[in-house]
Amino acid sequence: MNYKSFKKRSYEILEKGASDDRWSRRIDLFIISLIFLNILAIILESVNSLKRDYQLIFDYIEIFSIYIFTIEYILRIWSITEKEEYSQPIQGRLKYLFSFSSIIDLIAIVPAYIPLLIGVDSRVVRGIRLLRLFRILKLSRYNRAFSHIRNVVKSKKEELVISLFAVLTLLVISSSLMYFVENKAQPESFSSIPATMWWGVATLTTVGYGDVYPITGLGKFMAGIMAILGVGLFALPAGILANGFGNTLENKDSCQTCKHCGKDIN
Amino acid sequence: MNYKSFKKRSYEILEKGASDDRWSRRIDLFIISLIFLNILAIILESVNSLKRDYQLIFDYIEIFSIYIFTIEYILRIWSITEKEEYSQPIQGRLKYLFSFSSIIDLIAIVPAYIPLLIGVDSRVVRGIRLLRLFRILKLSRYNRAFSHIRNVVKSKKEELVISLFAVLTLLVISSSLMYFVENKAQPESFSSIPATMWWGVATLTTVGYGDVYPITGLGKFMAGIMAILGVGLFALPAGILANGFGNTLENKDSCQTCKHCGKDIN
Amino acid sequence: MNYKSFKKRSYEILEKGASDDRWSRRIDLFIISLIFLNILAIILESVNSLKRDYQLIFDYIEIFSIYIFTIEYILRIWSITEKEEYSQPIQGRLKYLFSFSSIIDLIAIVPAYIPLLIGVDSRVVRGIRLLRLFRILKLSRYNRAFSHIRNVVKSKKEELVISLFAVLTLLVISSSLMYFVENKAQPESFSSIPATMWWGVATLTTVGYGDVYPITGLGKFMAGIMAILGVGLFALPAGILANGFGNTLENKDSCQTCKHCGKDIN
Amino acid sequence: MNYKSFKKRSYEILEKGASDDRWSRRIDLFIISLIFLNILAIILESVNSLKRDYQLIFDYIEIFSIYIFTIEYILRIWSITEKEEYSQPIQGRLKYLFSFSSIIDLIAIVPAYIPLLIGVDSRVVRGIRLLRLFRILKLSRYNRAFSHIRNVVKSKKEELVISLFAVLTLLVISSSLMYFVENKAQPESFSSIPATMWWGVATLTTVGYGDVYPITGLGKFMAGIMAILGVGLFALPAGILANGFGNTLENKDSCQTCKHCGKDIN
Repeated sequence: MNYKSFKKRSYEILEKGASDDRWSRRIDLFIISLIFLNILAIILESVNSLKRDYQLIFDYIEIFSIYIFTIEYILRIWSITEKEEYSQPIQGRLKYLFSFSSIIDLIAIVPAYIPLLIGVDSRVVRGIRLLRLFRILKLSRYNRAFSHIRNVVKSKKEELVISLFAVLTLLVISSSLMYFVENKAQPESFSSIPATMWWGVATLTTVGYGDVYPITGLGKFMAGIMAILGVGLFALPAGILANGFGNTLENKDSCQTCKHCGKDIN
Repeated sequence: MNYKSFKKRSYEILEKGASDDRWSRRIDLFIISLIFLNILAIILESVNSLKRDYQLIFDYIEIFSIYIFTIEYILRIWSITEKEEYSQPIQGRLKYLFSFSSIIDLIAIVPAYIPLLIGVDSRVVRGIRLLRLFRILKLSRYNRAFSHIRNVVKSKKEELVISLFAVLTLLVISSSLMYFVENKAQPESFSSIPATMWWGVATLTTVGYGDVYPITGLGKFMAGIMAILGVGLFALPAGILANGFGNTLENKDSCQTCKHCGKDIN
Repeated sequence: MNYKSFKKRSYEILEKGASDDRWSRRIDLFIISLIFLNILAIILESVNSLKRDYQLIFDYIEIFSIYIFTIEYILRIWSITEKEEYSQPIQGRLKYLFSFSSIIDLIAIVPAYIPLLIGVDSRVVRGIRLLRLFRILKLSRYNRAFSHIRNVVKSKKEELVISLFAVLTLLVISSSLMYFVENKAQPESFSSIPATMWWGVATLTTVGYGDVYPITGLGKFMAGIMAILGVGLFALPAGILANGFGNTLENKDSCQTCKHCGKDIN
Repeated sequence: MNYKSFKKRSYEILEKGASDDRWSRRIDLFIISLIFLNILAIILESVNSLKRDYQLIFDYIEIFSIYIFTIEYILRIWSITEKEEYSQPIQGRLKYLFSFSSIIDLIAIVPAYIPLLIGVDSRVVRGIRLLRLFRILKLSRYNRAFSHIRNVVKSKKEELVISLFAVLTLLVISSSLMYFVENKAQPESFSSIPATMWWGVATLTTVGYGDVYPITGLGKFMAGIMAILGVGLFALPAGILANGFGNTLENKDSCQTCKHCGKDIN
């Protein structure tokens, strides 16, 4: 296999992903499995007893992953010129370097190289190791099924953002009022508005940890109203998304062709 | 710039808000930023350590805001006669004074002037300062995007109110029954029906702080039924709003035609 | 006003409720207000300090209400023969006596007469007094707006019942498994399957009081799965009701008349 | 009744379930009642005091059920050849043996025979007894009404699985971040990422037991964001299912016509 055809094959395997390309699917499956293995390793490594006993395995997984992800990253940048959009050797590759997928790929490997280059203390190392978690975002490239939900959420983005804003407004107002009401009775839990917002968010989202709650009659009355309003506000995203899914699929499913004349209904 | 054209310009900048009017947009952005800065200051001022250290900054923000909001308020009332609806100098301005936006603008500044006019004790001052929070409502003038959600909620107002009424009925009945069942076992937490309603609202909204909960077998059985009913009842607003969003958009998106003449309904 | 026309008028005022009948509306409003006053009195009476200080007022409200509700009940039964459905003096009235509304009306007054007829101890009296709460159901006669939601819920009754059944099945299975897993670690909180169901219902409905929760690793893992499943299951009624509201209103709103030919679309 | 007709009758009664077949309905009702009795017995048997006092009754119910379910199982396998699909005496029966319903039927009886065949210790016996719970799945055969909901869920399977995956991704990321933030302040509750996931799942599902919660400012801030995101993510299944129910019924109810020929689409 010569240089040209090897580059073309790399591109086909890594980027194109034709469903009848056996090697492309195998490589995809291998990288996806490696990502999941990484996530699992990061989670389990945080358990002290496991870390102590199986440090070597975790290290091997990490080193192996870095090799693979680095090779993958280099091959992608090298072969991307096969794609028309990025066909210019330098400009195209630079453009690709700053695409979302490519940045994710870089974040997945860079943290591992930092401690090799500069001396860092152990807390920073722990923070850097945590960055490896973002490897989970590498999955977004492979998960074509995500796109439907993402499209629905995107099509309703404006309304969802406004819902969020309404929630935040309610949070600010209710926490401020509650701070004014409860502060005297419980000066520690409701010491300031930001502190009261911890109660507010637990109440509005109905999590209700139970570490802070009003004890005065007026405070309880207001908390009740806020809890009910909170449930109402959180019915908004459900309603918005229900409509979003309805719209997307209506175009696909309910309006196709007329059974009488066979023409497209839209 | 003469008196007449200055009044007209004030009106254009403050009220009309044409999207191609650069100064109108700049002033809007300035006032919106000032409102957010105010909310932030009110929240942070409640933190004792911040209040002690940065009292001066909070005071400057407050004084500056009062100046701006007062000037804004006066300019709005003065220039509103440019609008046809309020064109009569006295009647028009009086009518505008009692409009929703204008009252909000007044509430945003009046509290600041009260302590200057009459002597008030510190607790009242704190209450008055809290009124500044309502400045957040000044945003409603600028937030055009809110209108869609507000329209949906308004179109479903009746059903949402009835849902709320159903929730309250369930709250009263379940709290009364629970009071009867648990009162003997926990005379303090379930001391009266209003006291039991604190448990009731925490259960129906699924907040569940965990400060009060039944301990008798019958009480637990009833609490379980109520929690399940509560979830069902709170599915109502989600269903209602989902339908509300659906209806609004259906007018825009759907593809129905009349079966009599075959033309598009919309 | 003779006997005949008085009976007819009673029927018109109490049952028919034509919207242009001023006295009918006044009497309706009076009885609705009285029902709300009763509910308020029952709730407040449970507060010991209020009961001690205002016992006389509560008693007067109760006695007055009993008089009014008794007169209302007698007049309804007497005048119901004006309605064609119940026109036969004895058979018609008996049939009416066993209608839903009539039974509610009876339950609203009967408890008050029991202590007069037979000697009862104080605990039974308290139970009887609680029965007065069902007076709230008298409102169902007046609340025409409830009917829309009731119709939607009724049209989806079968699916809602199945959702409930699915929730109960999940509750039984998850509680049984959790009992098996946690029983040894917490023999008191998870002493039996029925006891574990208290944890189960608090978890599935996401109330989460926090009085019982698993402490073993396996128990926590299972609790997490159940909490997620529970959220999914409770999305069912929201989805079902959203669809229910959609169907009912579609008939009313979205399919009216064609603007081209003016004919009814349905 | 000869061999042939008895086999045919068994098949008709057990499998076919024609609604006008009185004996088929009686037998169905009997087996359904027996299943419910079994579930009840399993639940009540876990209560120590009931187990001690009524051990004999529980044993009788169990023995009786095993007899019935065994006879039912054998009759089903024997008579299934009446169904065209399984008409071949050996191949057909083998195929039926590995069908979902048949495996459930086997699981319902097999656990009871194990202790008779081999000696097992008491803990294993308890585990085996718990397997009897799966008898509840025998109901799936009879519950025709489940099918609508099952179809809706099945038609939205892909989107629901992706929602679940999104929840798990959020759970992993948020728990890892929270572990990093809170670990130092609460080394016991947030001892590792898996341990922190117990907090994460309680927060994302809004259960909020209150046994673990962040105490640092940054931790509380992040927990608030996660709780709000969690509510948003759990609005997804509600929206998806609402759309699912909408699609199924739209085929039945909606009133669309083709704009090309004007005829009704359905």
